Amino acid sequence: MEQGLTVASIIEAAGILRDVAVVTPVRTSRDLDRVISGKAFLKCETEQRTGAFKFRGAYHAVMQLAQRGGCRVVTTVSSGNHGQGLALAAKLWGLSAHVVMPQPVSAVKYHAVQHQGATVSLSETRALAEEEVRRLLQEKGTRCVHAFNDFDVMAGQGTIMLEFFAQVGRIEVLLAPIGGGGLLSGLCVAGHHLDPRLNIFACEPVGAWDVAESIRLNRVVPMPRPDTIADGLRTSVGSRTLPVLRAHLAGVLPVTEEEIAHAVRFAYERLNMLIEPSSAVALAPLLRSQPELRGHRIGVVLTGGNVDAEALRGPS
Amino acid sequence: MEQGLTVASIIEAAGILRDVAVVTPVRTSRDLDRVISGKAFLKCETEQRTGAFKFRGAYHAVMQLAQRGGCRVVTTVSSGNHGQGLALAAKLWGLSAHVVMPQPVSAVKYHAVQHQGATVSLSETRALAEEEVRRLLQEKGTRCVHAFNDFDVMAGQGTIMLEFFAQVGRIEVLLAPIGGGGLLSGLCVAGHHLDPRLNIFACEPVGAWDVAESIRLNRVVPMPRPDTIADGLRTSVGSRTLPVLRAHLAGVLPVTEEEIAHAVRFAYERLNMLIEPSSAVALAPLLRSQPELRGHRIGVVLTGGNVDAEALRGPS
Repeated sequence: MEQGLTVASIIEAAGILRDVAVVTPVRTSRDLDRVISGKAFLKCETEQRTGAFKFRGAYHAVMQLAQRGGCRVVTTVSSGNHGQGLALAAKLWGLSAHVVMPQPVSAVKYHAVQHQGATVSLSETRALAEEEVRRLLQEKGTRCVHAFNDFDVMAGQGTIMLEFFAQVGRIEVLLAPIGGGGLLSGLCVAGHHLDPRLNIFACEPVGAWDVAESIRLNRVVPMPRPDTIADGLRTSVGSRTLPVLRAHLAGVLPVTEEEIAHAVRFAYERLNMLIEPSSAVALAPLLRSQPELRGHRIGVVLTGGNVDAEALRGPS
Repeated sequence: MEQGLTVASIIEAAGILRDVAVVTPVRTSRDLDRVISGKAFLKCETEQRTGAFKFRGAYHAVMQLAQRGGCRVVTTVSSGNHGQGLALAAKLWGLSAHVVMPQPVSAVKYHAVQHQGATVSLSETRALAEEEVRRLLQEKGTRCVHAFNDFDVMAGQGTIMLEFFAQVGRIEVLLAPIGGGGLLSGLCVAGHHLDPRLNIFACEPVGAWDVAESIRLNRVVPMPRPDTIADGLRTSVGSRTLPVLRAHLAGVLPVTEEEIAHAVRFAYERLNMLIEPSSAVALAPLLRSQPELRGHRIGVVLTGGNVDAEALRGPS
């Protein structure tokens, strides 16, 4: 389906995910509403299968490959959540999965990907992981499902936005974390189709600050030495996600490591939720009461809950 | 909110209904799929509060009135479901409701409207019922919430379509019963915004066949002597719904009384569902294997389940 990312493809994907993905709940919190003098809606992809939204896009892409035929093994580079989603999707379609994880890995994610039945290799760096995937692709019947630079994956993630609107109605601001931009591309296309006035912000750790630069320069700026606990957000954006992000984002909000740790703890202590640092990146801007986030109806995508226990400690 | 019916107003309504309306389930049936050589998705508004979709629009409209202030009593003409929805909405906002029901009334609906705490009057005909409502409106603080010719009501009903897409993804055909056209207006605006290719058909009893004529002549054709068991569909369309229907409908499908009774029984025996005759009108075209309905993904809105026991008997 090389037609690009459209609302039609996102609606198609919703139909494909109908019987297999969780319609994740939306949570609200008076504490949080007080902080922002507004109303926050938390879309809890933490409760998606495999504990993260990534299952949506992975399943949608694997189904296309399985139905086209000739595919026996799917492979990918992943820090963990996409790998888990891909492994489960492959299992459901009777395929094998081989996930290459760049160091440093989250122990909980490493075991979870294995637990889903995938073969897991570790690589020292993302570049070496990509090389390993290229090598694997020389095997007959092996296909790559890229974690974000794939239109089927992007469409799968976009189904979150359809659900979110149906669940909460109009929101004025949407916050989501950004790594490669697959999630945000889907959210942007579905979100602005339904409500062109929606302000969509990408939230990015200052320790992996490449998206604003990539948008400004209109080219993929590499992210050679990311330094953030948000393991899902260490990549640079993709060639297919960048044009969508450029066309739709209202801005990129920087988030510090202290803010990430604080947001993880806030979620744990005040919302009773275990969210991973990459999710916390989208919650953090609310907690610092940024002026443009006050007094509004704000949607936040909590992308995953696959957290190492250490993340609950952290600075301060 | 005299802005007309827009996707934005439907999304607003979804937010208002978020904490108060049921996100109704979608059911499928292998039996039904076999009959149509396709895939049918049944949106079960039978499980909405008060047993019918009408609660959505009524609540949305009552909330607007309550927040604007100066309203103590809401009144309306209704065959029952809108009356029940209105009565519950009024109760939730601390208002009184006075529902005027034209004869013949469904006993189960009469008692249900009373049970929701509304004052109920009976009128010999719809025209007399409307006169009675006009009289009630002369009381200070009394406002009318029309069952369909009201933009807030139409927007509330349209929220069904947002949910439906998020739940099942792309459908090629949508079937819904038509009385005044409030439901179908909402479905059309949300449906075609998300998928311009969607073929939307209104299903209408031949015993209350005014919509196709109204569309053809581009004026509201009155329906003086409706003769159908589908008590929710006896009205003519509205001045505000007609232009929307004209712009969006792919066609109007006629349904006989025998087909309605057959569809009620099919739902009961094969789907284990109690649906009212007005709902059965949208299911019936599937059961006669109409050629243009074969081999497709078809959505059907089952509008309500408030059925008198007699309806399960009926012709043949």
